[in-house]
Formats: sequence, structure tokens, C-alpha cells
Amino acid sequence: MPRLRSRNEDQVTTKVDVVEFAPELMEFLGRAAYVQLIQFENLSRAISSAPSTSAKTAIGRAAELSLGKHRMLVDEITKVGGSPAEVMEPSTADVDRFERATHGADWFETLVTCYLTAGFLDDFFSRLALGLPVEGRRIAGIFHGESGEAVLAELLEDAIEENPRLASRLAMWGRRLVGDTMLVARSSLRYSENHKSDEARIEPVFTELIAAHTRRMDALGLTA
Amino acid sequence: MPRLRSRNEDQVTTKVDVVEFAPELMEFLGRAAYVQLIQFENLSRAISSAPSTSAKTAIGRAAELSLGKHRMLVDEITKVGGSPAEVMEPSTADVDRFERATHGADWFETLVTCYLTAGFLDDFFSRLALGLPVEGRRIAGIFHGESGEAVLAELLEDAIEENPRLASRLAMWGRRLVGDTMLVARSSLRYSENHKSDEARIEPVFTELIAAHTRRMDALGLTA
Repeated sequence: MPRLRSRNEDQVTTKVDVVEFAPELMEFLGRAAYVQLIQFENLSRAISSAPSTSAKTAIGRAAELSLGKHRMLVDEITKVGGSPAEVMEPSTADVDRFERATHGADWFETLVTCYLTAGFLDDFFSRLALGLPVEGRRIAGIFHGESGEAVLAELLEDAIEENPRLASRLAMWGRRLVGDTMLVARSSLRYSENHKSDEARIEPVFTELIAAHTRRMDALGLTA
Repeated sequence: MPRLRSRNEDQVTTKVDVVEFAPELMEFLGRAAYVQLIQFENLSRAISSAPSTSAKTAIGRAAELSLGKHRMLVDEITKVGGSPAEVMEPSTADVDRFERATHGADWFETLVTCYLTAGFLDDFFSRLALGLPVEGRRIAGIFHGESGEAVLAELLEDAIEENPRLASRLAMWGRRLVGDTMLVARSSLRYSENHKSDEARIEPVFTELIAAHTRRMDALGLTA
């Protein structure tokens, strides 16, 4: 079994931070919980279509961790008196669109989606959480928990080693994912009236998130 | 969120026990781990096809618990020096056949499958574990852990209440599941040379497992 590692090992930090744009607690929790549910659905699709039992078991660990994060976010919603399904509802249209766009044509592309978008979005939501009116640091911790990232990376490395021709296709797929992942992240922000100035201030954050995305691709030997 | 309860609340006991037929440790663990993986795949299908976000979240808890059991069984395989995928491999044909037979035509039938077959098979494997050469009691405990049974029962009760015409179709489906579930359970036993006498001795165990199955159907108001 590949080693699991906590995502905060390569967490990003900036001065101008996304926390200024944090939506209110309930809105944040609903969005993050539903994104996590969709991340799980991608993982479960990767399990169903996995070419081997060992791959199923390995991805199973990532799926279990993702469901755990979803449950913790749902518990936070309940704790502040919300009804989880109602609170998630406003996010379903945006996030379902993201899911369709990042579905992938086969198992390998689905796995790249799981690996890259979970990393990006967990980083993003952990930063956003720090701007919440209450308990931001504790909630941010949910996204820093153990993740299946290393497991997924190892499966992808093995697949590419076995079939080097996969690399260029998966590199292209990885690059394509950036746009849709940025889109779903941006739609989770609450802008002020001066939208243009907000965009300029938030740009450095996305630059760092993209840099982390590139490092994840590099780790697989995929030129980003 | 519906209450979760531990499955051993309605665990069955008999004098003539299935433990005499326990296969060797590695064989047992491989079979049980792969069955649990398929149970998870059924649950994840129920999540993908769920009609509401609240149902997705509720089934998510059952799926997380199922993946946890799978992981614990895989850890047991590793602990005794086995390679999980290799040890599960001999079970894939039988269990995949079971999965196809119990797939269900829609979300409701899939959910009935998750509810009834998980209960039956967890009961079965926990009893079988007691006959293992070593650490049987500890391994049996894996199957007694918190389960998603109550969550699934509540979703089904709500669905039937909302649409009472579902009841007769789901009752028929529940009855049909017994045969295929018994088949996959029986194929996990190791018989002696006197197969006929074994069958007679093991019959009371299956009678009790079927009684528990009937109680689970009764709990939903489905006449078994």
C-alpha cells in the first residue's frame, strides 16, 4: 500500500489572501460539503471502473477519507442549526456542471481528475475557511486531514510507466482541468461591489493554487 | 440524520454453528474483504443515483463505514503477510456474479439490496470468523462495527411511505435476494468430504440468517 500523506505538507501561503472573500459560514459549509460529495462520486466511479482489485482497494482509502471530510462538513452544518441538504442545494448547479466538465473519458482521466481537482479544491477551501467569521482555523483543519493524494499519484505513476503513451493525453487533460476547477472555486467567492479590483487582488492566490497544480502534475512526470 | 445502530443488537446464535466450516484465515479474509468492497460499490451506486442530496449524504455514511470494514480486512491480510489483491482474487468470480444478480432495476431496488444483503452477509461472516484458527473473535468484531443499516432502513421507509405502491415490488425483490445471498454465503464455506451431512448440519444456521432477513423486511413493513 502506498504511503498516505497529509495535504498540508505542500500547502501554499500568500499575503493577499482569499480570506477577504470568504462567504458566510453556512454558505461556505454548504459549498464545501457538496464539492466533497462530488469528489467522492468521482472516486467511486474510479473504483467501479478500476482495472484491478488492488486499484479498487487503494482508491477505496481515498474515497473513505473523502466521505469522512464530507461528513465532518455536514456535522458542522448541523452544529450551527442548518439542514445539510438545504444548505448544499444552492451549490448543486455550479458543482454538477463542474462534475460533468471534469468527468473524463476513461479510468485514467477520471483518476487524474480525482488527483488534481481534490488537491486544488482542498487547498482552496482550507484558505477560504480562514476568513470565516468563527472557527475558521478549526474548519480549515478538515481540509488538511489525511488525503488519498499519494495513493492516487502512485496509481497514476504506475499506469504511465506501464504505458508511456498515456503521458501526453493525461498531461493535456490535466491542463484542461485547471479552467473548470478555477471556475468552480471562483464561484464560491463573495465579491464586493468593486468586482474588478477584487479580481486583481485575488489573482495571486490563484497563481499559487495553479503552481501547486503544476507541482502535482510534475510529480507524475506530466509537463504542465 | 437517522440514528445509527450496531448490527450485533439483533445478532443470531445457535448451537450447531457455521464455525465448523470456517475456511482458513487467508481464504476467509480475501472472501470477506472482496464482499465488503462489492457492498461498497452497491452503496456508491445508490449515492450516484440518489434522488436527493440528503439521501446522498445519508448513504455516504453507510458507504464510509463499509469502506472502513473493507480496509480493516485488507489490513488483516497484510498483517498475516498476504497481498490483498492476490488473496481477494479467487473470490472475484463468485462475488461479481452475486453483484450482477442483485444489482436491482432502479435506486429503490439497489437500496433494498444494500440494506438486506449487507445485514445478511455481515452476520454470516461474523459467525464464520469465530471458527478461524486464530483471532477469530477480534476479526468477528469487524463485522459488528457500526453499520449503515438504520440509515438505509429510514430512507426506504420514507420512500415507501411516499409511494405505497413501491411496497409490493420491493417485497418481491427482497424475497428474490435471499437465494443469491445464500449462494454467495454457501460458496464461502469449506465442506468436509461428507457434503450431504454438512448440509444438514449447517441448515439451522441459514434458517436463522433467513429469520433475521425476514425481520429486516418486516421493519420496512414488507411482508417477507
